[in-house]
Amino acid sequence: MNKPVTNPKHVTNDVVTRGALPGSRKIAVDGVPFREVALSGGEAPVRLYDTSGPYTDETVAIDIEKGLAALRRDWVLARGDVEAYEGRVRKPEDDGLKRGELLSVPQFDRAGRKPLRAKAGKNVTQLHYARAGIITAEMKFIAARENLGRSALRDGNSFGAAIPDEITPEFVRDEVARGRAIIPANINHPETEPMIIGRNFLTKVNANIGNSIVTSGVAEEVEKLVWSIRWGADTVMDLSTGRHIHTIREWIVRNSPVPIGTVPIYQALEKVGGIAEDLTWEIYRDTLVEQCEQGVDYFTVHAGVRLAHIPLTAERVTGIVSRGGSILAKWCLAHHKENFLYTHFEDICELLKQYDVSFSLGDGLRPGSIADANDHAQFAELETLGELNRIAQKHDVQVMIEGPGHVPMHKIKENMDRQLKACDEAPFYTLGPLTTDVAPGYDHITSAIGAAMIGWFGTAMLCYVTPKEHLGLPDRDDVKAGVIAYRIAAHAADLAKGHPAARIWDDAMSKARFEFRWRDQFALALDPETAQAFHDETLPADGAKVAHFCSMCGPKFCSMKISQEVRDVARGQNDGLSTAEIRAAMEKKAEEFREHGGEIYLPKDAAE
Amino acid sequence: MNKPVTNPKHVTNDVVTRGALPGSRKIAVDGVPFREVALSGGEAPVRLYDTSGPYTDETVAIDIEKGLAALRRDWVLARGDVEAYEGRVRKPEDDGLKRGELLSVPQFDRAGRKPLRAKAGKNVTQLHYARAGIITAEMKFIAARENLGRSALRDGNSFGAAIPDEITPEFVRDEVARGRAIIPANINHPETEPMIIGRNFLTKVNANIGNSIVTSGVAEEVEKLVWSIRWGADTVMDLSTGRHIHTIREWIVRNSPVPIGTVPIYQALEKVGGIAEDLTWEIYRDTLVEQCEQGVDYFTVHAGVRLAHIPLTAERVTGIVSRGGSILAKWCLAHHKENFLYTHFEDICELLKQYDVSFSLGDGLRPGSIADANDHAQFAELETLGELNRIAQKHDVQVMIEGPGHVPMHKIKENMDRQLKACDEAPFYTLGPLTTDVAPGYDHITSAIGAAMIGWFGTAMLCYVTPKEHLGLPDRDDVKAGVIAYRIAAHAADLAKGHPAARIWDDAMSKARFEFRWRDQFALALDPETAQAFHDETLPADGAKVAHFCSMCGPKFCSMKISQEVRDVARGQNDGLSTAEIRAAMEKKAEEFREHGGEIYLPKDAAE
Repeated sequence: MNKPVTNPKHVTNDVVTRGALPGSRKIAVDGVPFREVALSGGEAPVRLYDTSGPYTDETVAIDIEKGLAALRRDWVLARGDVEAYEGRVRKPEDDGLKRGELLSVPQFDRAGRKPLRAKAGKNVTQLHYARAGIITAEMKFIAARENLGRSALRDGNSFGAAIPDEITPEFVRDEVARGRAIIPANINHPETEPMIIGRNFLTKVNANIGNSIVTSGVAEEVEKLVWSIRWGADTVMDLSTGRHIHTIREWIVRNSPVPIGTVPIYQALEKVGGIAEDLTWEIYRDTLVEQCEQGVDYFTVHAGVRLAHIPLTAERVTGIVSRGGSILAKWCLAHHKENFLYTHFEDICELLKQYDVSFSLGDGLRPGSIADANDHAQFAELETLGELNRIAQKHDVQVMIEGPGHVPMHKIKENMDRQLKACDEAPFYTLGPLTTDVAPGYDHITSAIGAAMIGWFGTAMLCYVTPKEHLGLPDRDDVKAGVIAYRIAAHAADLAKGHPAARIWDDAMSKARFEFRWRDQFALALDPETAQAFHDETLPADGAKVAHFCSMCGPKFCSMKISQEVRDVARGQNDGLSTAEIRAAMEKKAEEFREHGGEIYLPKDAAE
Repeated sequence: MNKPVTNPKHVTNDVVTRGALPGSRKIAVDGVPFREVALSGGEAPVRLYDTSGPYTDETVAIDIEKGLAALRRDWVLARGDVEAYEGRVRKPEDDGLKRGELLSVPQFDRAGRKPLRAKAGKNVTQLHYARAGIITAEMKFIAARENLGRSALRDGNSFGAAIPDEITPEFVRDEVARGRAIIPANINHPETEPMIIGRNFLTKVNANIGNSIVTSGVAEEVEKLVWSIRWGADTVMDLSTGRHIHTIREWIVRNSPVPIGTVPIYQALEKVGGIAEDLTWEIYRDTLVEQCEQGVDYFTVHAGVRLAHIPLTAERVTGIVSRGGSILAKWCLAHHKENFLYTHFEDICELLKQYDVSFSLGDGLRPGSIADANDHAQFAELETLGELNRIAQKHDVQVMIEGPGHVPMHKIKENMDRQLKACDEAPFYTLGPLTTDVAPGYDHITSAIGAAMIGWFGTAMLCYVTPKEHLGLPDRDDVKAGVIAYRIAAHAADLAKGHPAARIWDDAMSKARFEFRWRDQFALALDPETAQAFHDETLPADGAKVAHFCSMCGPKFCSMKISQEVRDVARGQNDGLSTAEIRAAMEKKAEEFREHGGEIYLPKDAAE
């Protein structure tokens, strides 16, 4: 599955995966993209949420050297509250270079485009507009996108969420205004297709990408993004470190139709040679400005790791496992001072509101094992995150709250309930949680269990975990496996919450299954390629795909086929027939059965 | 991963997988087998439940032509209530052969061993003994096996289950006597290592195996069993159909250390040429006798598919999806008569108690889609299963109840609660359930989510689902993927229920992780091979396995390492130090930090 590595210096579009998923077609309705699956058997097409951007649209030319079209640029400018400016001066250390050292990857050509920021005294966040009663173009886009054009079909338990039958732009505005949902949308990232993170919307999935030590080339880095969103990542966090970090991020942001998140402390740490205690507020702030100007949509900020919380981790089995959390813990201990992200939190708010960068308040003290779940350290930090959320809300800066980690099933709901309470329903964004620690190599599964449950209970976005978690760096196959496992978790959560848009997909699949429309089943699958490949291993002949049997029962005996016959008979009862009439109909059908002997297999030319 | 196919006529032991899992050792304590993982760093070895039988014991010679040692033979004979007899006369149709047609696979040589049955008037079930207050050798074995020699560590929510801190033989007896657990243990399958299925014991996993159309040879069929139990299947259902079914089953049972389940209606159907309406009670009963004599430990019996229930499936999206259920539905409709398994249920009880074969009451009307979950058809059948359970209890025949299938998360608990109520807490044995239908190719994951939840809520055994579900026949890799996903689900359930034996495994892994004992992490893993292979992809050097860093953060910055430093400092608080003393200690540590600069990576010779 791994794409061949091409010349690292040459920017080529060939390594970027293109084309719709098999059996699907990219459509746009009033500019809002969907994955549409046309079905046979007289069934209406099914419209699915589509995170993949223009890469799956064969009618769009992609040139990563130019970047994606700036869909939101006009919307941002039309609001009249931003200004272009020269921006911060680029420094060699932004790319992890020593002075005089040259980049060994090409730069993205911004074609003279300057960064935007809020005009003096303005606040350009979606939260600010929402509270002012303004329905933005982003909110309208999101309403159409979430709605999927579907009427209500409600069956679920949403644990106090408030999912409406139809998502209106006003509902989007209201949820953002309440701080119950965020729209990560940096004004310097106009290439995004707006999306929303909140528990009254479809559950979202984040995938992490990062450069390898052997960075192959910028197109390969863009391909990591494209590959993640192809399989369903709603946002992507760029966790790159080391050399070329600024330049690679620029390539990623310019080519990303989904919001990009980062952990700025990682880059700041690089700038001080990896020595946590040498970090300063000034270096950190400068890094924030750098990334705000590039267009990063949300920042993980570990401002909740307070000095006083650190001793609470002393008796843990696995201490502090968050990389950001341990950087800050180390800084606090080295200086014996309060975390500078905490003391400068309002300064960060002042900055973020000029660009509409959202907070993802990091859980630096999240548990790293089943043993440490729901302990004092975790919940002490959560209370602090609630306090910080209230400060950010005061500044109209959008906030989501990060959560664990490793939590056994019986402690998951408490996590969710406490987060809702402590953080005034700000969207929860959890990593997993893993429900057991004993299966390294399979943590996409140990955590998909926890993710599905916490998603049901109210988590708005699930950060994926790949099979390589705890063991190594994920490759292309691992990223796909992680995203798919998390799309399953998110969709299972949407079904259980009773999201009106969720059930139609399952029902379409089930109906296709019952009617032996194999091609429709593949097309509707989360991963059509794997579904078809698995089917074809056992029954590779092309004719098998319209045959009225499958390999489990074989042509001689098929439960689905029999079931159709049973239904034809038994349905009589619902047509107002009397018991005697049903009995007569059943006797008649019984005679037919006997006449036909075992011949329940329809030859393929009679099928479909 | 697929083993090469050898000469189909030749019985060879070479295709059977042997040897302990890497880093593990097979031990026996008073004859009870365990997987023991020796750890470094002064940690005590961890003892894990082991389903794999003698195949992982390098000290045991395996010859599948002889079969496994008959561990339970003496126990059975010592009770003095059985007799050997000539047994039923073997017929060509037992193997799906026409008269005069010859077997093309070798027969297992029983060396003159005759089947056993209860002496006239005797009942040889474990339930019968339990109610008579007798603690059998099987119960003692099970108590030791479940206990894992561990003291109590309790943290969980068991939803009304009654898990004791220590499993005693008397507790085993009592649970069996109450009908809340079963010990599938046919007196003609003395090769089994006794195990128990009940919600107050460790959650169990079943794997299904079946012959392929291109049967390769008997050793290959035995290897399917060995492969399943190697990864953790507690019981195996042989769902073979077609030619050689009797002979292959004999090879499997004689070489199986775990209970074997079957669906006898499948073989009965073969005997009438695949024509459901030609099935008769006599043919079915004869098939039961055949399989009782061979040593099958439990039978799926779809006696709950009553004629009156069938119309309830008429409006379903996916009708009847159970193969057994649809066979019986067809029979009912063809004859317009009540299901003969229902009308002859007491006759079946009379037979099963002579051999101690357990019922697995089949859910022939289980939902086949999210849309059909928890509907009238399913729950009507469940009530009937409860009624049948009460009849079987009257005969002291052991019973478990099969459950769905496809159920969205918010409907899982209702399923469990209704089963407990309708079936007087008889053990529940569910297939999945799948929590969404949209991910064919990944149904081991869609269903592991549901399996973990229903396991937590009280299901005693989880029937695995492989990635090929709905698409084709599982191969070797699929079987492993399915078993591992279900071991994860079962263990996550045990953790959440607060089973005293569960947490120690996770804690040992977490501690090894925190202390960078990589080899210990691999050895403790559910799948040591995959864990190590994934690790070695990124850091293949042998030295990396003792280095104090991993590939996620790299040598320069490691959160686990920092965390250890933090702990050393902060632990002071728990040693009764005053705040001033802690502050002083922290200042001191802070100085050390500053002196060392960024040097938090220990060279590997300093590690371990």
